[in-house]
Amino acid sequence: MSTPPSTAAATLQRVPVATASQGYEILIGAGLLSAPLAWQGLPCSPQAVIVSNAVVHGLHGAALESTLAPLHRRVSTVLLPDGEAHKDWSTLNLIFDHLLREACDRHTVLYALGGGVVGDITGFAAACYMRGVPFVQVPTTLLAQVDSSVGGKTAVNHPLGKNMIGAFYQPQRVVIDLDTLATLPERELKAGLAEIIKYGPIADMAFFGWLETNIGALLAREPSALAHAVRRSCEIKAQVVGADERESGLRAILNFGHTFGHAIEAGLGYGAWLHGEAVGCGMVLASTLSAELGLIEPALAARVQRLVERAGLPVLAPALPMPRWFELMRVDKKAAGGDIRYVLLNAPGSAAMQAAPQALVEQVIRRHSAPA
Amino acid sequence: MSTPPSTAAATLQRVPVATASQGYEILIGAGLLSAPLAWQGLPCSPQAVIVSNAVVHGLHGAALESTLAPLHRRVSTVLLPDGEAHKDWSTLNLIFDHLLREACDRHTVLYALGGGVVGDITGFAAACYMRGVPFVQVPTTLLAQVDSSVGGKTAVNHPLGKNMIGAFYQPQRVVIDLDTLATLPERELKAGLAEIIKYGPIADMAFFGWLETNIGALLAREPSALAHAVRRSCEIKAQVVGADERESGLRAILNFGHTFGHAIEAGLGYGAWLHGEAVGCGMVLASTLSAELGLIEPALAARVQRLVERAGLPVLAPALPMPRWFELMRVDKKAAGGDIRYVLLNAPGSAAMQAAPQALVEQVIRRHSAPA
Repeated sequence: MSTPPSTAAATLQRVPVATASQGYEILIGAGLLSAPLAWQGLPCSPQAVIVSNAVVHGLHGAALESTLAPLHRRVSTVLLPDGEAHKDWSTLNLIFDHLLREACDRHTVLYALGGGVVGDITGFAAACYMRGVPFVQVPTTLLAQVDSSVGGKTAVNHPLGKNMIGAFYQPQRVVIDLDTLATLPERELKAGLAEIIKYGPIADMAFFGWLETNIGALLAREPSALAHAVRRSCEIKAQVVGADERESGLRAILNFGHTFGHAIEAGLGYGAWLHGEAVGCGMVLASTLSAELGLIEPALAARVQRLVERAGLPVLAPALPMPRWFELMRVDKKAAGGDIRYVLLNAPGSAAMQAAPQALVEQVIRRHSAPA
Repeated sequence: MSTPPSTAAATLQRVPVATASQGYEILIGAGLLSAPLAWQGLPCSPQAVIVSNAVVHGLHGAALESTLAPLHRRVSTVLLPDGEAHKDWSTLNLIFDHLLREACDRHTVLYALGGGVVGDITGFAAACYMRGVPFVQVPTTLLAQVDSSVGGKTAVNHPLGKNMIGAFYQPQRVVIDLDTLATLPERELKAGLAEIIKYGPIADMAFFGWLETNIGALLAREPSALAHAVRRSCEIKAQVVGADERESGLRAILNFGHTFGHAIEAGLGYGAWLHGEAVGCGMVLASTLSAELGLIEPALAARVQRLVERAGLPVLAPALPMPRWFELMRVDKKAAGGDIRYVLLNAPGSAAMQAAPQALVEQVIRRHSAPA
């Protein structure tokens, strides 16, 4: 599973993100961690801090440190405990403690080197430290590359709900080195595929068809397949968040599968299922519910389920008591005045938010749950 | 010390604040807590939450609750422990716990009823809860009315530095009911005068002259004097933050006296001195330093010191070890790359940020400190 070293200049692709608050670029290519070109033009500051975890830092920390060395007088590193279960205030505080101990000022640049947890926490730390310092997303998991690193959603979890405490805060740049996918654990690769699959039914059925054809190549980590999937995902996400940075409407479609998914994650305790696994299963439930409501043909729901399954992701939800499902879904951020709002498919390649009769939702959950 | 009830319509004054991110109004008048006019046109939402502390809520909670009752389906209240020592994450979390327990969604409006601590924490909670909900500042202390409630600086303290964790997040409105000053403890009234005095030397020497004439009337809480002082302070602050919301330059002048002041607060432990007391003393040090550097005449520094003293505020700093002063001032947010930057007067009615020789700063501190 080794990818040959490649010259960044040959493969560098740029996806612009234009939000109301800030415009920036997503750079995608192989070998970018070591390509000076990818790091030019970022804010100058004497101090920089890499935020990562021990595993990712062991794999990629040295490459990033030596690339950043000419750009800052001092580059220090803070390592966070790994996993969604640690995406909380006490982990966030490790960053603040480090920044203050190092006497970092408000020009300090933070580099988030890692997956979605590192990116979300680092982004929120950047949003809050001295009321805002610049940061750069350097996602090293497939899920972070195609979803969480793009669009400026940052957050930590609260015991009563996922991503409840956070900010909309855009990075200065997203640098995606595709070579980092070579060392990604199998389970995390699959979890990332869930967020890629998501973009098909909600926005681009041609891409969905491409995924059905190329799911094997993606699981085999063929570089050209991964490059296309990452790029197309970033393009769709950039377009959506450019139109609706603060999720007053359209952006909510990116949460397809997430209302059910968040309930699974919170119900089992963060970290039991990976976020992508919960979202994959959540998309199956949301597609089935869309079909039950007559919004789409059952055949489309079946296609979603089949692709999720072929990606090696769970299609049966864990056995949670029914009242617990609704209790957890009611604290979802999309809820309005206590009503649960689901992101549902209303046509192939199109989604919207709406409520649904509880009895029908219960029926869908029961049909797609593992036996208690 | 009772003020006669007054009709809001007769006294309502409006000061517009126009920042890059959001425009809003400061409403100033007597009796506004009970004046429906002052609360019209705010965001509609079924849920609203008043954040306050036990003392302020006991005095003004019932009035605000009954005024808000027709505007929201449910108005609940969360009370925070009082004082700067509690302006931290655990107190912030009391608000998040309440919002999540009450299943508050992202349209919920928060009302910050209290002084600077309540306003700063509530504003930061509003900035972070579900990545941002609307909030209204209802300041009940003189300091909050003339300074902290205006301009969207929100924060909590970190053990290693004051206001280190926060956000620039503007309220929907600031509603200042001058009647709340009637019950303000004497010590807090004086602390508020420090931030009022601040606006003179940095921005408006005519106002400074007015304060020298009317300091007695302000200490005696004469309504017309307080009304003028609050209004003029809000006007100056609105003008400065309108020109520089995120403190990239000009806005820093509002921190006149704060570099020394923050060191005093942190050095003694938050809450030993009130923020306004530390700022009052800090202005004396900063004025003296300005004169020592030849930026202003010594006579102006003497006038600042005299007015601070007449306001009943301390002009001698507490005895802190000299290295501690510099350690604390170095983590100030205005520091850049480890260099301490002071807001200094460079002419009557004008201030700017600059460095100063450490030996000179030590001399000024020694001259204006209480014996160890």
